[in-house]
Amino acid sequence: MELEFARLQKLNELQAAIGYKFKDTELLNTALTHTSYVKGDGNGSVHNERLEFLGDAVLELCVSEKLYKEYPELNEGVMTRVRSLSVCEGALHKSAVGFGLGNYLLLSHGEEHSGGRSKPSILADAMEAVIGAVFLDGGMGEAKRLVLYAVESHIERAVRNVNTKDYKTLLQEYVQKQHQGNVTYNLIEASGPDHQRVFTLQAVIAGEPKGIGSGGSKQEAGQKAAKATLEGLGLL
Amino acid sequence: MELEFARLQKLNELQAAIGYKFKDTELLNTALTHTSYVKGDGNGSVHNERLEFLGDAVLELCVSEKLYKEYPELNEGVMTRVRSLSVCEGALHKSAVGFGLGNYLLLSHGEEHSGGRSKPSILADAMEAVIGAVFLDGGMGEAKRLVLYAVESHIERAVRNVNTKDYKTLLQEYVQKQHQGNVTYNLIEASGPDHQRVFTLQAVIAGEPKGIGSGGSKQEAGQKAAKATLEGLGLL
Repeated sequence: MELEFARLQKLNELQAAIGYKFKDTELLNTALTHTSYVKGDGNGSVHNERLEFLGDAVLELCVSEKLYKEYPELNEGVMTRVRSLSVCEGALHKSAVGFGLGNYLLLSHGEEHSGGRSKPSILADAMEAVIGAVFLDGGMGEAKRLVLYAVESHIERAVRNVNTKDYKTLLQEYVQKQHQGNVTYNLIEASGPDHQRVFTLQAVIAGEPKGIGSGGSKQEAGQKAAKATLEGLGLL
Repeated sequence: MELEFARLQKLNELQAAIGYKFKDTELLNTALTHTSYVKGDGNGSVHNERLEFLGDAVLELCVSEKLYKEYPELNEGVMTRVRSLSVCEGALHKSAVGFGLGNYLLLSHGEEHSGGRSKPSILADAMEAVIGAVFLDGGMGEAKRLVLYAVESHIERAVRNVNTKDYKTLLQEYVQKQHQGNVTYNLIEASGPDHQRVFTLQAVIAGEPKGIGSGGSKQEAGQKAAKATLEGLGLL
């Protein structure tokens, strides 16, 4: 099937936005074709679900490679969490909106009228499909460039969030994986005047005292104790 | 850290087996270093867990690309199932055994004595880490070659199994995704003598009669009815 001139022009706009010119524009068109558009015409092969499947794997590898190379301090568990935050529907939806992807989708009339053009799930899936299409048309290098352009800020935010929020969770997950039960935190000291208390907690694993942390709340002290323990275990 | 001559010689054997010669042999050594080997020496960065994380993503993409290109008849849901069968622990363990990977692992004494060298999970993880190491050292092309060598037969088997086993499951999953409730199967006919009965069933979705199938058992007839229905929906 040859694309009409008007459609080709429209797709040129999008190619300028994503910074990649397709050799086979039909692939890009397929990436933008929602399943609702072709349902019922008996041709199940021209909507974007298979490209979305491929694009998802391209995305995961590009993000994994970046995390591996640029964040050597992150262990496997943290990288897994950061990756899933970076490639989640919310992150992909934002990237799709940034490229104006909604303007180029092919949808059924029904889906169109129910606001499909701005549905996060439809946009996120199309974003993955476009990544898959770029991978097929231009190879891994071009796909990587688009992925990093699309989700780099999400990766950086996810690394910050995982790093500042979740030492206690990380430690608990690690300890459970090692079948050592739960981490507990013992209050060692609470000092200072009432409006400026400083708590000091020590993490305890399987009866063994581990890292110590102090802070203005027990929560903060616990996070620091967990972080110190993770560092002591060579996990950070 | 420089590798000792004896270790280098051993790693040369493995490189011959996998058909790839590393520029940086240290990477291969890391891929073969189980976490137990370095635990406690304070250096958490030289075992194979981070390479395993990367290798897993390389593996997923290579298998996804092959499924996308070589099995155009498989929809996204089926490809997802085939991929997860092809890259499961059992499949990777078999590939690792084929390369003799167990002979090259670095393990703690404890892990060694408890049979770690032949544990499926340790071998499967090391197989992924080796794939990750080849990707970093030689790029996507070399990684793809190794992945296909390692899991191609598993992919082919998974495609056959998914294709022959699961039409009813596939249809049920599709119908649920469309919020159309459950698929039921009505017995239309049971003919032939007792020792050679032929059953004919029709799939029914949301009260609507769909595909029909016949076979020597109700199970077989149901599978065929589901297959006919999937074909009618343009999903096979």
